[in-house]
Amino acid sequence: MDQQTYEKKMVGEKAAEYIKDGMIVGLGTGSTVAFTTKKLADRIKAENLSIQAVSTSHATSKLAESLGISLLDLNDVQKIDLTIDGCDEFDPELNGIKGGGGALLFEKIVAQASDRNIWVADASKAVNQLGAFPLPVEVLRFGWRHMFRAMEEKGLHPKLRMNGEEPFLTDSKNYILDCHAKAIDDAKALAGWLNALPGVVENGLFINICDQVLAADHDKVKVINR
Amino acid sequence: MDQQTYEKKMVGEKAAEYIKDGMIVGLGTGSTVAFTTKKLADRIKAENLSIQAVSTSHATSKLAESLGISLLDLNDVQKIDLTIDGCDEFDPELNGIKGGGGALLFEKIVAQASDRNIWVADASKAVNQLGAFPLPVEVLRFGWRHMFRAMEEKGLHPKLRMNGEEPFLTDSKNYILDCHAKAIDDAKALAGWLNALPGVVENGLFINICDQVLAADHDKVKVINR
Repeated sequence: MDQQTYEKKMVGEKAAEYIKDGMIVGLGTGSTVAFTTKKLADRIKAENLSIQAVSTSHATSKLAESLGISLLDLNDVQKIDLTIDGCDEFDPELNGIKGGGGALLFEKIVAQASDRNIWVADASKAVNQLGAFPLPVEVLRFGWRHMFRAMEEKGLHPKLRMNGEEPFLTDSKNYILDCHAKAIDDAKALAGWLNALPGVVENGLFINICDQVLAADHDKVKVINR
Repeated sequence: MDQQTYEKKMVGEKAAEYIKDGMIVGLGTGSTVAFTTKKLADRIKAENLSIQAVSTSHATSKLAESLGISLLDLNDVQKIDLTIDGCDEFDPELNGIKGGGGALLFEKIVAQASDRNIWVADASKAVNQLGAFPLPVEVLRFGWRHMFRAMEEKGLHPKLRMNGEEPFLTDSKNYILDCHAKAIDDAKALAGWLNALPGVVENGLFINICDQVLAADHDKVKVINR
C-alpha cells in the first residue's frame, strides 16, 4: 500500500467511528470514502447497529448494496444526520472543490440535506487557495458548446472530460467541463456566476457546506473544525 | 376563434416578418410561437428563403419538421441571430416568467445563445409585477422533496406539476415545481437564490434576456422595446 492509499484508508476508516446507532448517514463517492463504507459495514455487523444510508452515486449504491448496507431514497428521508464524503481540495475555511469523480451533483444535494458534513482527506487535499485542482462543472449536453465558450471567455480554461474516445457521462447523463482556473480568488462569486449560466446543472465549489475535515497528517488523523 | 387565440395568431404571425433571409432562428415553444413557426414555413416556401432553425423542445422540433423547416443542433451553431418565443408574463422592464409549457430550460439556453430575443404575447401576459403566474422551477427527481421543502420555507408555495396521475416530466426528465409566490419583489435575488439551491436545474425567471415584445393590443400589435 502506497502512502496516499494508506492515508485514505486511515482517515476513511476513522470517519466510520463518527457514525452512531440509529443514524441516517449520507455516503459520498470516491476511493477515500469507500474505506468509510467498508468499515461501516463491518461495524454494523460486529455491533449490530441500526443504520440506514443515502447514496450519492450509482457506484456508491453498488458498493453499499454489496456490503449489505440498507439504502434509502433521499426523497423518503426528512433529513440526514451525518454525511461523510471525500473532496479534491479544501482550504483553511473548509470550502472545497469536489467532483473529480463526477458525482458532484448528487453529492451536493445530499450534503445540503444533511445536518452535518464531514470530509475525509489525504494530505494532498489541503490547499491555501482553491483552484489548482480543476473545477468540475456539470452541464447539459444540449448546447454545451455555448457554456464552454462562456467559460472560456471568463478565463476558466474549460476542458470537456472524456472517457476514452467518448465524453464522460455523469449519473444524470450530463457532461463535465473541468475548469483549469489555477487560482480561484472569489469562490462564492464564481459559484454564483456558474449557477446563473443557463445549462449549468451544478458546479464543484462546495462553500459553507463542510463542518469538519478528517485530514491525514503523516500517520495521524488531524480533525479540523470550521 | 376566441379573442385570445386571435391575439396569439396576430402577434405570432407578425413576429415571422422579423426573420430575414439567411438567418439562424431560435424557435420557442407554446401556442403563440407555433403561429410564428407556421407562418415562417409559409414564407420559406413562398419567398424561397434560406433559413435554419434551432428548436427549444421536442414539441417544437416535431412541428418544425412536419412543416419542412431545416433544424440545426444548438452545438453546431456559433450563434443564433434571432429567437422568437412566448412568455407567461412580462413586466415593464421586459423581464418575464416562462415555463408554463415546461420548456424553460432549453428555452433559456437558446435565448442565452441568441443575439436578439423577441417575445410574442397576447394581452393577458402584460403585468406590472411578476408573480401572479406561478413560477416554474425545474428540479432533479433525485431529492426533489428537499428542494420542495426549501422553497416552502422560503414562502414560495411550490406545487409539484402533474400530468394526470403522474408527475409531469420535462424533456430532460426532470420535475417542475410551480411556485405560487403571487408577487415577486426582487426577481434577480429570487433567481440567484433558486440557482444556488442544489438540484435546481433552471428557474422560469428570464431577466435581461428579452429585447422586444410584440404584444397584442386589441386588434393591433404593439412593439415594446427594452
